[in-house]
Amino acid sequence: MLLSGGLDSTVAACLARERGFELHALSFDYGQRHKRELDSARAVARTIGAASHSVLNVPIGEIGGSALTQDSIAVPTGRSEAEMGGDIPVTYVPARNIVFLSLGLGLAEVKDADAIFIGANALDYSGYPDCRPEFFRAFEEAARLGTKRGVEGKPVRIEVPLQHLTKADIVREGLRVKAPLELTWSCYQGGRTACGICDSCVLRLKGFREAGARDPVAYA
Amino acid sequence: MLLSGGLDSTVAACLARERGFELHALSFDYGQRHKRELDSARAVARTIGAASHSVLNVPIGEIGGSALTQDSIAVPTGRSEAEMGGDIPVTYVPARNIVFLSLGLGLAEVKDADAIFIGANALDYSGYPDCRPEFFRAFEEAARLGTKRGVEGKPVRIEVPLQHLTKADIVREGLRVKAPLELTWSCYQGGRTACGICDSCVLRLKGFREAGARDPVAYA
Repeated sequence: MLLSGGLDSTVAACLARERGFELHALSFDYGQRHKRELDSARAVARTIGAASHSVLNVPIGEIGGSALTQDSIAVPTGRSEAEMGGDIPVTYVPARNIVFLSLGLGLAEVKDADAIFIGANALDYSGYPDCRPEFFRAFEEAARLGTKRGVEGKPVRIEVPLQHLTKADIVREGLRVKAPLELTWSCYQGGRTACGICDSCVLRLKGFREAGARDPVAYA
Repeated sequence: MLLSGGLDSTVAACLARERGFELHALSFDYGQRHKRELDSARAVARTIGAASHSVLNVPIGEIGGSALTQDSIAVPTGRSEAEMGGDIPVTYVPARNIVFLSLGLGLAEVKDADAIFIGANALDYSGYPDCRPEFFRAFEEAARLGTKRGVEGKPVRIEVPLQHLTKADIVREGLRVKAPLELTWSCYQGGRTACGICDSCVLRLKGFREAGARDPVAYA
């Protein structure tokens, strides 16, 4: 499972656990502006009983081109969900999911894993091309053709359990499967408390509100 | 262009140059047993006039599972081409090309590149699943669906100009386009001179012999 330490990947991981999978967590240090989410990933992996947790350094930040890895591009704040729609966001990291899934595939081959779980969902794929269902299916096919497991007739599946869920649905699923939501970190900024105004915080807070639940994370 | 510093990627890069592309070279430090080939990549990039050359650290070695990144698995030596056939070699690095192409895709988006050149060829894809033509087509489709360039209708192409060439053909092409073959390094071992007996050396020497040419590299 790809585990960023955010709400989505944590709920996706707990859904994998519910289905009886042994969990191997994989997180990435990719030059994101803050390491706060990696601390969350470690705490989540421990709490949900992952059999292993790898944190790999990936030089996506060196390639450049995103507000999430470059201080020179500002993270947008104070936007409503409607204002976020349409264009590809400046927080798009070129080829991020394809790089993450590829490294996940390498680990899956070594661990002899049947599937890779990723927390992408309906909200994401309105803006990020590498969160669209058709991308995941195409990647799964490339993975089948390009790996030893695929050649041997047991290709690694790409599981996207939140694919068609809204943020409110994800919160509800998280509560149902007792995901440690209090340990997750979604904010694009790296403060002591979540900022509450970046796109990620806005969507998360709206999700909790619509699910009629209280977000256990502290906000500024 | 993905540039390992070996014979194949160097000839592929020179074919891209012949077609008029501005060249951006990308090499990977992935925990391979020796850094000799990275020195070759730097020398080749400089000599063929690449506009840029990036060397990215990629933690494939940390994932494990290959003789090329783990000292505990021996690199086979003294095998004929016939003995190499059939099975996936122990030098297979799980998901290597899919990881390399993914990072190449990130760079291609940032550099606004039209294509990624990779030196895979007929000999490779007899053994490595991620060198097969059908894998490259599937990856290209995943890349189209998963990137900003793809969404904008100008997907990055995956160019595999040596795909159907034998080693002898590659040597001939290299001589024709005046590729700096004397700077390349193909040996799986990291000695001062090439070993001449690992699979890679055996295939290279046979290619030069069949092309009626002398390999300019020194052998032990």
